[in-house]
Amino acid sequence: MRENSTRFQDEGDRIGFVPTMGYLHDGHLSLMRRAREENHTLVTSIFVNPTQFGPDEDFKDYPRNMENDSVMCREEGVDILFAPSAGEMYPNGFSTSVHVSGLTEVLCGRSRPGHFDGVTTVVAKLFSIVMPNKAYFGLKDYQQYRVISRMARDLDMGVDVVGMPIIREEDGLAMSSRNAYLSRQERQSALSLNRSLREAEQMVADGMTEAAQIESRVREIIESEPHTRIDYTQIVDMDDLTPLSEIAGQAVLALAVYIGNARLIDNTILVSAIASRSEK
Amino acid sequence: MRENSTRFQDEGDRIGFVPTMGYLHDGHLSLMRRAREENHTLVTSIFVNPTQFGPDEDFKDYPRNMENDSVMCREEGVDILFAPSAGEMYPNGFSTSVHVSGLTEVLCGRSRPGHFDGVTTVVAKLFSIVMPNKAYFGLKDYQQYRVISRMARDLDMGVDVVGMPIIREEDGLAMSSRNAYLSRQERQSALSLNRSLREAEQMVADGMTEAAQIESRVREIIESEPHTRIDYTQIVDMDDLTPLSEIAGQAVLALAVYIGNARLIDNTILVSAIASRSEK
Repeated sequence: MRENSTRFQDEGDRIGFVPTMGYLHDGHLSLMRRAREENHTLVTSIFVNPTQFGPDEDFKDYPRNMENDSVMCREEGVDILFAPSAGEMYPNGFSTSVHVSGLTEVLCGRSRPGHFDGVTTVVAKLFSIVMPNKAYFGLKDYQQYRVISRMARDLDMGVDVVGMPIIREEDGLAMSSRNAYLSRQERQSALSLNRSLREAEQMVADGMTEAAQIESRVREIIESEPHTRIDYTQIVDMDDLTPLSEIAGQAVLALAVYIGNARLIDNTILVSAIASRSEK
Repeated sequence: MRENSTRFQDEGDRIGFVPTMGYLHDGHLSLMRRAREENHTLVTSIFVNPTQFGPDEDFKDYPRNMENDSVMCREEGVDILFAPSAGEMYPNGFSTSVHVSGLTEVLCGRSRPGHFDGVTTVVAKLFSIVMPNKAYFGLKDYQQYRVISRMARDLDMGVDVVGMPIIREEDGLAMSSRNAYLSRQERQSALSLNRSLREAEQMVADGMTEAAQIESRVREIIESEPHTRIDYTQIVDMDDLTPLSEIAGQAVLALAVYIGNARLIDNTILVSAIASRSEK
């Protein structure tokens, strides 16, 4: 992979990179399509990274289908599909980690200790190997996008980190490889995530700016469905992810909910009318 | 700097890199000369990195002489002297660190908590910005060399980390910018570091393999001089830096000693006769 990257860079090609854990869906494909448009060369990686899963999490169960993924990559014009083994990525004596403080201590970072260290370390490695000019991440994991952007800036990686809109099923469920865990009943319940986000948007459009009231309504909607257990619902600052009590301008409403064997995340950007006026 | 690095790489130049904290001496110059020989382009950095100094350490007092350093770099054929400010290296909101575990928990890592995180983080940044093919470090800080080699391998940085022999004054004192702190009397005492290392080599040549006995003799030699206070003297494995009780093959005898306001480090590679025989 490195030899290829070096050759592409030597030839002056711009490399677009879409790192994934495979079991590709339309969310991933939207990243590939944008990357395909904006770069000469498109590299996708598939690596179910063990170090970003906790000991009681779903590393073993995480869905995999390399054959299908390969076909999809070919159809999207991926030039190189990079699928390293864990042994190649973490050789004997591996002892280095990349840590982003602050941003990783809230939301998913609080419920999944060590998760983001696994993410930043593997992404730092992938960036070194693939040498992308731009790397594309879905905004469904908004926190991950912020953490990786910060890392890339802080370590001067020279990679432009691009966040791409959440892609949803027709019924509104955010696309996720983990949706494969849901039974039909659970999937019905999972629709409450998107429904609660739309309700929150409406509340803000109607002039509500108090975070606690919005979060409370969001929880009410989700908890009224069977099979749901809320991990968090929180309105945070778009840049530094600190919890907000009042929405003034833009804010992110992020949530994580256990449904059956799945832990699903989703979010939306809330824009208060006050800020829209003040921006004029 | 990045624009220059990108241009050099695009032109197929191999970049040799010598990162320093300035106040250059013959030790640094030996790195530059080797880098000059082995690469098309020679980049040197001068950055007294605040994050690798502890709160009670000598960041403020660390000797600086940019004018003199610039002249020396020019004389050694340095193509680019990169001297960023702390504000450029650590912008507002900076929150990323690179950590190497294990290797950093012994020797200087034990006496200087956080020191190596400062080193690995700044070197990761410098490698990203300078994009070297090879980077050169003096073996006087043997632990630093091992830690940076490990980081570069673990994060697939594509940088060949080269360790270069310790350069000494005529009287045997290892060259160091911090030697500037020594009074004439203290400098006399500091000669005991090199003397003790030579004595240890002789003991091993004479068949001694017991680490405790060698360390004890080393301490005796250093402690017999005024103004000295030993931080550590330790015989460790060359690769993973774990303390050894018995020398079988190669080992590093590393030491750190406070002398007046200076904390000096030095080391030597010990090679036991047993291993030399078994290698035939």
